[in-house]
Amino acid sequence: MSNGEDDITVKIHYCGVCHSDLHIIRDEHGISQYPIIPGHEIVGVVTQVGTNVDKFKAGDIAGVGSLVGSCGACDNCRDGLESYCPSPLYTCTMLEFEGQAKQYGGYSDIIVVNQHFAVCIPDGLYLPGCAPLLCAGITVYSPIRNLGLDQPGKHIGVVGLGGLGHLAVKFAKAFGAVVTVISSSEHKRMEATEQLGSDSFLVCHDSRQMQAAAGTMHGIIDTVSAHHPLKPLLDLLRTDGKLVMLGAPDLDKPAEIPLLPLLGRKYVTGSMAGGMKETQEMMDFAGKHNITANVEVIPMDYVNRAMDRLARGDVRYRFVIDIGSTLDQH
Amino acid sequence: MSNGEDDITVKIHYCGVCHSDLHIIRDEHGISQYPIIPGHEIVGVVTQVGTNVDKFKAGDIAGVGSLVGSCGACDNCRDGLESYCPSPLYTCTMLEFEGQAKQYGGYSDIIVVNQHFAVCIPDGLYLPGCAPLLCAGITVYSPIRNLGLDQPGKHIGVVGLGGLGHLAVKFAKAFGAVVTVISSSEHKRMEATEQLGSDSFLVCHDSRQMQAAAGTMHGIIDTVSAHHPLKPLLDLLRTDGKLVMLGAPDLDKPAEIPLLPLLGRKYVTGSMAGGMKETQEMMDFAGKHNITANVEVIPMDYVNRAMDRLARGDVRYRFVIDIGSTLDQH
Repeated sequence: MSNGEDDITVKIHYCGVCHSDLHIIRDEHGISQYPIIPGHEIVGVVTQVGTNVDKFKAGDIAGVGSLVGSCGACDNCRDGLESYCPSPLYTCTMLEFEGQAKQYGGYSDIIVVNQHFAVCIPDGLYLPGCAPLLCAGITVYSPIRNLGLDQPGKHIGVVGLGGLGHLAVKFAKAFGAVVTVISSSEHKRMEATEQLGSDSFLVCHDSRQMQAAAGTMHGIIDTVSAHHPLKPLLDLLRTDGKLVMLGAPDLDKPAEIPLLPLLGRKYVTGSMAGGMKETQEMMDFAGKHNITANVEVIPMDYVNRAMDRLARGDVRYRFVIDIGSTLDQH
Repeated sequence: MSNGEDDITVKIHYCGVCHSDLHIIRDEHGISQYPIIPGHEIVGVVTQVGTNVDKFKAGDIAGVGSLVGSCGACDNCRDGLESYCPSPLYTCTMLEFEGQAKQYGGYSDIIVVNQHFAVCIPDGLYLPGCAPLLCAGITVYSPIRNLGLDQPGKHIGVVGLGGLGHLAVKFAKAFGAVVTVISSSEHKRMEATEQLGSDSFLVCHDSRQMQAAAGTMHGIIDTVSAHHPLKPLLDLLRTDGKLVMLGAPDLDKPAEIPLLPLLGRKYVTGSMAGGMKETQEMMDFAGKHNITANVEVIPMDYVNRAMDRLARGDVRYRFVIDIGSTLDQH
C-alpha cells in the first residue's frame, strides 16, 4: 500500500490480542471473509511520512487503534467522536462492505495510515504494554471521562478483571477515584487490591457484601461479556449513577434490565472506543501516570496457542505479539 | 389530624386522578390494605398555618404532590431530591409499613402537611389544570431539566400522549425544544400537532418515517406503560441521547434492551417525581408560561365511572375531581 500525502507508514513492533480478534478469526459472527489479518492495538516506528504530515516524523513511535478512517463530515466526526461515525473504516475488517476495500490489521509487518488516525506515544512508557491502550485502554478511559467519573472521590465499580477491567482500575485510580472491583469469585481479591491497587473488592454473589455497598457508586464499568444479572449492579449505584456496559458479545440477545431501579434515576449505557482527540489525551495521561497494560509478550508463532488460552480466559491481562522481533520477514 | 407548628392545613379544591390511584384502588399490586384514600395531585386553599410556617399564610393557594415526608438526612434529601429518599412518606399509602402511620390522600376535604412538602401555586393559572402538575407535570419536567433537554433547539421525542405525555409536549415546547410525538397510531396526529403544538409526529410502526428521523433526538420521554420494543426508540437518539422510561407498570418484568444501540453512547434511564425545590421551580415555570394540564373536571360522585374510563384510556388527558364543590361535607 503506497504512502499518501496525509499518511504515515508504521513498522509494527507490537500488536495486542483483543478478544474481538478471536471472534473474527473463528468467524463467530458468521460473516468473516478470508483472508483476514486481525489486530488493532498497534505500536510501531514511523518509517515514512507524506508531504502533508505534521504530526509525525520518521523515527517517532506511533500507535494505531481500531479505526483508520471515518467520513469526516457527520456530527460525530466534527465533535471528535470518529468512533461513532456511521461510516467508520475499521483497522481490520471482516468483509468487503459497500465497495470499500478490506482493511488488514496489525498482525503484520507494516501499516499505512492517515496521520489523523495515529497517535503519538509518549516517551518512557513500556512499549508492549502501550499496545492494549489503543483499544482496551481508550474503551475504559472514554466513559470514565465522558460520565464525569474522572474526579477525586468518585466511587467507581469495575466488573470483570480482564484486559479492559484491569486498565479501568488503573485509570480510575490515576484520576483519584475510589475503586471497587466486583467479581464473581473471591480468588481475584489479591490481584485486585494488592497488585492493581483497587480500594476494595466485592463478590457479587455475596448478598451481605453487596447490600453493604448499595447506593455508594457513581459509576460502574462493566467489562463482562457473558450475560449476567444487572439488578445487583444497579443497586450499587447512587442516584444519577451510571452503569456502562462495554462487553456485548451476544448482540442479538437483548439485556434484561429491571425498570424499578432505573426509576431511581440510574442509567444504563454503553460505549465504544473514544475519538482520536480523546485517544491522544488518554495516551498523554498514561504517559504522565505511567499507565500501561499488564501483558504477556508472545512470539508470532505462539499466536494460535494464545488464542486457545484467550478463549478460556487464561491470560493476565493481555497477550501482545512481539511483531518486530518474531515475525518472519519474507 | 392536628396542625403542627411546621404544618399547614389545606382545604382541598381539586384533586387529579392519576393512573396509580387505579392500581391502588383495585389492589393491582396485591398489597392494598383498606381503607385507603387515593389522590396525590392536590390543589386547595390554606386555612391554617403552624407557628413556624413562613411559606404560606391563610388564604394562599397551595399544592401537594405524591410526597409528604422524607428522612431529611440522606444525601438525596440534602441534595433536594426528597423523592429519591430511601424512607419516603407518600401522600397516599397502600399499607402500614414499618410502624409508619398510613397516609390518606386527596380524595378528601382537607390535608395537613408539613410546609416543606407543599408548593405555592402562582396566580392566574387555571386551578383544576394545576392539580395534575403536582405529579404528572413534575414527573416529565424533572428529566427534561435534569438531562439538559431544557434548551432551545434540543430535539425531544415524546412517546404516548396521555396525562404525562401531553404535559411533556407543553413543557418541552416552552423550553424551546423541537418536539416530536411518537405514537402507535396515526389518529393522534391532529391533537399532537395542532392542539398541543408538537412540531412533528411519527407513527412508530412506519419504518420509513422512523428511519428518516434516526439519530436526530437528544432525548425521548417515554410515558407508555405497556411493554413495547425499545430498539426503534434507541435508533431515534443521537450520540449521547437519553431514553427516559417513566411508565413502569409491570415492575417484575424487566425491559429487554438491545445492547448494540447502547454502544453508540446512548442511555436508558428512568425518573420519578422531582424534589420539592424542583417542584416549586416547575410550578413557577408553569405560571410564567401559562402551562396547565388539559383536564376533564368531574364531580366526586362520578369518580367510579371515571376510573372505568381511565382503565380503558378514555380521557383527554386527566380527570380532576372538583372536591370543593361536590364532596359531601358530613
